This record gives sequence, C-alpha cells and structure tokens, in this order.
Amino acid sequence: MSLLIVGTVAFDKIETPFGKTNKILGGAGTYIGIASSYFTDQLNLVSVIGEDFPKEYTKILHDHKMNTQGLQVVEGGKTFFWEGKYHTDMNSRDTLTTELNVLADFNPVIPQEYQNCEFLMLGNLDPSVQRKVLTQLKIRPKLVVLDTMNFWMDIAWDSLMETISMVDVLTINDEEARQLSGEYSLVKAARKILTMGPKYLIIKKGEHGALLFDQKENCFFAPALPLEEVFDPTGAGDTFAGGFIGFLAKTKDLSFENMKRAIIYGSALASITVEKFGTDSIAYLNQESINNRIQEFKSLLQVDIQLMD
Amino acid sequence: MSLLIVGTVAFDKIETPFGKTNKILGGAGTYIGIASSYFTDQLNLVSVIGEDFPKEYTKILHDHKMNTQGLQVVEGGKTFFWEGKYHTDMNSRDTLTTELNVLADFNPVIPQEYQNCEFLMLGNLDPSVQRKVLTQLKIRPKLVVLDTMNFWMDIAWDSLMETISMVDVLTINDEEARQLSGEYSLVKAARKILTMGPKYLIIKKGEHGALLFDQKENCFFAPALPLEEVFDPTGAGDTFAGGFIGFLAKTKDLSFENMKRAIIYGSALASITVEKFGTDSIAYLNQESINNRIQEFKSLLQVDIQLMD
Repeated sequence: MSLLIVGTVAFDKIETPFGKTNKILGGAGTYIGIASSYFTDQLNLVSVIGEDFPKEYTKILHDHKMNTQGLQVVEGGKTFFWEGKYHTDMNSRDTLTTELNVLADFNPVIPQEYQNCEFLMLGNLDPSVQRKVLTQLKIRPKLVVLDTMNFWMDIAWDSLMETISMVDVLTINDEEARQLSGEYSLVKAARKILTMGPKYLIIKKGEHGALLFDQKENCFFAPALPLEEVFDPTGAGDTFAGGFIGFLAKTKDLSFENMKRAIIYGSALASITVEKFGTDSIAYLNQESINNRIQEFKSLLQVDIQLMD
Repeated sequence: MSLLIVGTVAFDKIETPFGKTNKILGGAGTYIGIASSYFTDQLNLVSVIGEDFPKEYTKILHDHKMNTQGLQVVEGGKTFFWEGKYHTDMNSRDTLTTELNVLADFNPVIPQEYQNCEFLMLGNLDPSVQRKVLTQLKIRPKLVVLDTMNFWMDIAWDSLMETISMVDVLTINDEEARQLSGEYSLVKAARKILTMGPKYLIIKKGEHGALLFDQKENCFFAPALPLEEVFDPTGAGDTFAGGFIGFLAKTKDLSFENMKRAIIYGSALASITVEKFGTDSIAYLNQESINNRIQEFKSLLQVDIQLMD
C-alpha cells in the first residue's frame, strides 16, 4: 500500500568517539524512506532540498524506491544542514551547527499523484507544516504516524497540540512524554497523552528499547538489541519509525498484535543504522540481513514462562 | 532444595517523594529471603543483628520460612542502619546515614545444619566476608550467586576479584559492569566479566530491565514492568536476586532457558516490592498475586514475530 513520507532531507556532519564525517546524507525523511523501502515500493516523499544537493544522494533516494515528485528543489537554495557531536555515552549530543536554509520556508505541496496514500508518516517538523500536509489530503489515510520533539513543545505548544489531535500514532522519547503530559510515570504519561487524540503512543527509550501503549491499557515492550558498539546514533529514531510504518504498510494489519511486530521490525532496523555513520549501513540491506537481525531479537526476547503451581 | 542466604538484616529509614518512614525492616538478606520464600521453604539465613532488633521483625523472617539459626544476635549490639532519600526520578538517592554497628565485625558462621545447601545467594557484603562463607562450606553448592556493588570495586578490588572468581552467577548494575570491565558497551563488558570466573552475568538496569549473558554469547533481556508509580525502590535488586535464585532452587534446572524464566520471576517480584515502602508489599504475597504479575509480564513481552518473505 502506498506510503507518504514527509520529513527533512538534509546534510549531516557528525562526530562521535569513533570518528567524524564530512557533510553526508541525512534527514528524517531520508532515514524513514530508506527503512520503509525494505517493506513497500510505493513510497512517496515530500521534502525540500537546495541546488547543492548532489545527484548521487538523489540516486540513493531513488534506489530506495522513493518517488521524488514531491521533493522540492529550491533554486539557488542550500539544503538544510545539521552538525553535531556525540558524547562518550552516545545518549547525549551537542548541536554545533543548525542551518535551516531551504527548510525555513518549507511549504509542503502534495502532488496529485500522492493523493489516496493509505499510510502517512509525518517526520519531525514544525507542527504547522505537518498540519498543512494533513489538510491537503482529500482522503484521510488509514494510519497517520507523527514524530515530534521537545523543541516544538517549548516554542509551539498550541500548534503541536492541534497537530497531535489529528493523528493515530505519536512517537516521542521518554523525556518528551513526561514534558507533554506533566507526568513522571510513563504509564500515567501514556494514559494522559492518549486522551489528546492519538490512539497509540510509542515511547522511544533509545538504548533502553521502546514502549507501545493503546487506549485500552495494553502495553508492549520492545528492547533495543545490546550492541558491541553504537557507532553513530544519528537517524535511529527515524529508521525505527520508517521500519514501523513500512511493516504496517506491507502487512495491512492495524491490530495491536501487528503493531507489536512492527515495533520489533523498527527496532531491528534502528539497531542496524547505528552500526555505521549516517546511512552507511541502513542503505545497503537485503532481506537476509534483516531476517538475521530479527532472529537476534527473537532469541533476545523469547522465553516460555509458566505460572506457579 | 535448600538455599543458603547470606546478607544484611537491617533497619532502613527511607524518604521518597511520596513520604517517609521511621526505622523499618530492611537489608539484602531480608529481601532475598522474603522473595525466595515464595519458591522454597528450605531457607537458611546467615546474618547479624543487634539486641535492638524487634521480635516482630524476627517473626517476619520466620513467617517467610527462614531458618535463623545462623542469624547472630550480638549482645548489647545495635543493628546495621541505613537512611536514604530518593530523588524525584527514583533512580538516584542520597545516603543520609550509614551506621554499620554489628555489621562492622560480622564474621559469618555456617551452622552444621546449613552444610550441604545446594544453592547459595551471597548478598552484597565485603567480598572477604562473602569468601568466608564459601570457604566454610564442605561441599560446594550447585549454584553460587553473588551480588556486589561499586563500593567494593573502589576500595577492595583484589578481594572482590578473588570472590568473583569463585562464583557461578554475578549480579551487578550497568554502571558497575562498566566499572568492573572498563568497557562502555555492555556486550563487551559482559564478555570480559565472563572471563573473570562467573559463568553467567546479570546486568540490572533498574527501570530499564535486566540482561542475562552466558559464556556462549547467549543474551536474554527482561524488561521492568512499566508501573503507575514507583513508590520506594529500596530492596528491588535484592528482591530480584531472591526471586531469581528461589525460582532456580524450586525448579532445579540450571539451563539458560530456565535462567530466563528465573529472571522474569525475579523482575516480577521486584516490581511488586517497589509499590510500597520497604517490605510492605513483598512480605504479603500469595501464589495468585505472583501469578497475576507474571501474567502482566507475559503480555508485556509476548509477540509472535515472523521473518520477512
């Protein structure tokens, strides 16, 4: 089924304890698109880049089945650029540079060909921009997944709340869930957030896994795979989201049970992304490498528990 | 099968964001004993208390099937006392008071009746004291589980290494695993620690669950149950250890598969301990309440993952 992805396509410059990169391909839309391409080939991308965006990067998007009719190229513009440095624990980072460039005036336009998409992934962007996508769609998708971050809670609360009220699944991290709800306990936070509109909430806890909640108080936990080395965490959350919605678009089953599977697939792909810089590992997978990783998750998780007698 | 427990029996005074206690029953040996009592009734306790230890607390130990022949009562002595205050996040705490009292000169003596125990749980104590227990046992138990902490890594490294080399299972938290191994990655840390003697390593991550590693590079992850409220984390780690070894003593199966089950049982009991102050919840369970909690873990974990085709 067709999947519409709205998210940044960017240059990233990354430093981790293992080394540093030049400007490389990055952006939420890029990671979401690449990850979901392993599940569905009806991928429609809406984003914006500048004239400085190299052809070989556009080729990576095309190689991953992304329709780029909705990828605006701003004449004379420069592509969004982010530079960051991770600390030793890889859980925290300093942003060294943020150049919004063409992203500053991004006005998403949904091509006619993209109408009737059945799945929509809204990557982290200004909530008013995310809303512009929703209002342009003549038929509401079957499933709308929204990613956002604390930044918008700080500077655009009302706009964010409006956007959140329009979606089916919200993905945020644990600190953001606490900020959004005003509750420290993630169980209480989830309950409160699930009154704001979304039917499902995914709380991403990085190296500590992810939690899925629904409105019926079901809860599922997916661990992160313990890795020898986290080389570069950039894009892990977006890869997770892409794997999650890609799996749902492929399987066309929106039950809680299937969302659990989708979360495991998202986690598996995210665990691959962090093993190399940028898209260096996630862009070069095949079914076998994904299945091998899924197998590792299965053994990490599988336990046959009997009740006491 | 008989289980020997060596660990502190203490007074705790606890403050959390939810309230504070007077001096209440605490100590690693107490929590380990209570938790394991739900699995086996052949419990032998070795510890030390002062004359100030009230009869009603001794009764709680007896009510939980603990043989207290090895519980030394020091004439005129005062029981070990710890006072602490938890921060809002419940993951960190300040120790306000530590009065070692009779624990300062604790010299564990294993009664004849305790010889031939098949399972041994060494709660966190000076590693030289833990070793004195091991050397007094005429027959080595089938399984020896050791708990320790960063404090001993800081002040008694060589002694700790000697004790660690003598046990089968080591339980420590993630920061301690990093300190003990000098490796940041928990996978690398586990691999290194498993060359120091233990055949199994359990890395406790508090609200983020626990990892089990063996020497064959098997890895299992057990989540912590997301709770509405963590009321008081005191004793959670010791309850976990008690549930773990109690389950193994009951089932008499030391396979990796069964250790996975034991970790789920330990996690389930720990999730109950933190719901009230001190031993207020863990001391009053029955089979049904434990099974209900295990059922919650099952639904939190259960997912039927298919590989991609």
